[in-house]
Amino acid sequence: MKVSELSRRTGVKVPLIKHYLREGMLPPGRATASNQADYGEEHVHRLRFIRTLIATRGLSTGATKEILDAITAEQEDLHQVFGIVLGVRPTRTEEDTGAEEPSQEPDGEPEPESLADARKLIAAMGWEVSRGNPAAHTLAEVLAALADLGADIDWRGLVPYARLADSIADVDVRQMRGERDLLAQAERAVLVSVLLEPALLALRRLAQEDKSARHFGGGQAT
Amino acid sequence: MKVSELSRRTGVKVPLIKHYLREGMLPPGRATASNQADYGEEHVHRLRFIRTLIATRGLSTGATKEILDAITAEQEDLHQVFGIVLGVRPTRTEEDTGAEEPSQEPDGEPEPESLADARKLIAAMGWEVSRGNPAAHTLAEVLAALADLGADIDWRGLVPYARLADSIADVDVRQMRGERDLLAQAERAVLVSVLLEPALLALRRLAQEDKSARHFGGGQAT
Repeated sequence: MKVSELSRRTGVKVPLIKHYLREGMLPPGRATASNQADYGEEHVHRLRFIRTLIATRGLSTGATKEILDAITAEQEDLHQVFGIVLGVRPTRTEEDTGAEEPSQEPDGEPEPESLADARKLIAAMGWEVSRGNPAAHTLAEVLAALADLGADIDWRGLVPYARLADSIADVDVRQMRGERDLLAQAERAVLVSVLLEPALLALRRLAQEDKSARHFGGGQAT
Repeated sequence: MKVSELSRRTGVKVPLIKHYLREGMLPPGRATASNQADYGEEHVHRLRFIRTLIATRGLSTGATKEILDAITAEQEDLHQVFGIVLGVRPTRTEEDTGAEEPSQEPDGEPEPESLADARKLIAAMGWEVSRGNPAAHTLAEVLAALADLGADIDWRGLVPYARLADSIADVDVRQMRGERDLLAQAERAVLVSVLLEPALLALRRLAQEDKSARHFGGGQAT
């Protein structure tokens, strides 16, 4: 297809497509004339993936290019690709590939006791995660905030939530299966991981209203 | 206790405590001298609740006062209080109390088809929620984004997530039981609903890394 058709199919404007081509984020089309090229379905998919990364993660073009490069470098390893997409580089036994880490460093260190509590919860769940996973820091920050506010919820109180999060991740991983190629799998990983986050929180709030009506209310909600 | 002790116990500076007293957000203490007053545990609790609202919801003092007023007006009805805290005013059969709604209106309407799909999911779950619950709009926006990005996940694909969200809300409601008074219950509702949101997402990401290693990786993560 021509670049105009590619633009129509993906919703990405022609000048931006040309920019992605110059940056090497999109492989070149098959030349059909001195200034024309033919594009295929792989271009449609890659453009959609670029749009997904930018829309869901708020990434700059530069950060998106780093992720694309890293995904290309890890062709054979879906676990590494999933980690890159999530902003976690899983620990490796070999030397690192040298690719830039897109969003590894958390802002500021949480308190050591809270981080230790977060690690206790992770250990209690039997989860094997890399020490660099920024989600452990987020967890520690919430535990610190709960303690700071005088709430009687500690890491043990989060175990029922961790069990349900484990079930959610099972559903997530099931969604990852059956994709054609690595780019499609990476795109699916972004969609499922990042784009579904607000949906999960929204579903919880809807369920909370329903439960609240059943447990505490007069059942007037409709 | 004196105001200095109240400040020490809650971490709220004395001038801010005096501001809350002037605004009527904190009930006056028992006068012990012309310019001294004695404060009790109810002041500690209320100050902690104010801090929690401001810390977790990023609310202004004015919005916090509205919530406190609304909670006071609904003394007897935990379902209403839970709704107010969540930013949802559940539908009532009686006339509205006239209290200001803190965060009812969503920004912009989602597309009607996406909203209809969100309502299909809510109906499939058997959830009874008020039509004004902003979470339904968030859900519709995610469904619209998924469709827009060409993902083959529609509302039916979210049913397994909705079932798990339902279980999470069961845990949430269980946490709400056994609190002494309405203010303590309202504080618990804020903690559990709002403060745990980043923890839930973090737990999911940790579980995802674990599952990803087991399903796709060489099991090198530690």
